Amino acid sequence: MADSSAPTRVMMAVNESSLKRYPHPSISCRAAFDWTLSKLIRSNTGGFHLLFLHVQVPDEDGTYTSAPSPCLLSIKCEAWIRQGDPKEVICSEVKRVHPDLLVVGSRGLGPFQRVFVGTVSEFCVKHAECPVITIKRKANEAPQDPVDD
Amino acid sequence: MADSSAPTRVMMAVNESSLKRYPHPSISCRAAFDWTLSKLIRSNTGGFHLLFLHVQVPDEDGTYTSAPSPCLLSIKCEAWIRQGDPKEVICSEVKRVHPDLLVVGSRGLGPFQRVFVGTVSEFCVKHAECPVITIKRKANEAPQDPVDD
Repeated sequence: MADSSAPTRVMMAVNESSLKRYPHPSISCRAAFDWTLSKLIRSNTGGFHLLFLHVQVPDEDGTYTSAPSPCLLSIKCEAWIRQGDPKEVICSEVKRVHPDLLVVGSRGLGPFQRVFVGTVSEFCVKHAECPVITIKRKANEAPQDPVDD
Repeated sequence: MADSSAPTRVMMAVNESSLKRYPHPSISCRAAFDWTLSKLIRSNTGGFHLLFLHVQVPDEDGTYTSAPSPCLLSIKCEAWIRQGDPKEVICSEVKRVHPDLLVVGSRGLGPFQRVFVGTVSEFCVKHAECPVITIKRKANEAPQDPVDD
């Protein structure tokens, strides 16, 4: 268990907020990021390497609006952008990058909503070729207006 | 991110091997445990607290054969046994114990097998009230004879 071994490479899937044209990550993936820092990485910043995969879904007019945020942590970070269907993009990038762990936030949909929406996280748990952690958003973290999600 | 905060409480769901009457954990959950030690906890043994939930399914004659293993790690550990349907027991214990993270191993079944078998891990990802990490067994970790699983 000595940390002389290579850092654990954690890929974090970052989706943009549904508040279009304002480049910030969604509430779910910000919560997943905060949780990963405080509960997994803790003080062991040298033991981890964060890989931020920003997945952008084209707007109807074909433009892309979000961008990677600068990384101000004392942890080695990388960030890059891919465009397309999030679940397919994430699994394809896992195959290419070989992270030790994939972190995905989830809106914690109920069964009724899930039937219609499907979830990126469920797809990744089944298909990504690495361990996957699913972090559901708590009920009190849901936005009052879904457009702010 | 200072580790003056309370340790991260990691619940590990341990199922017995299908090699009945021999008390040892399944290949999947041993792999998940090894991965958790080497990739998450790493050298930060003071930052984590391991909670081993051993779930036992009654044999046909109603006896239970496995038992918690002694914990020889320099990490604070607890272990206990519950009996019943693993997916229901695990989610119920998460509700009772409130871990920060649930670790579940998965046999990595293909889509055809999954239809018939269902998986404990999929159920836990959907229903457990905490973040869940699913660790699929690698193809080369599958036993030659399924009875050794």
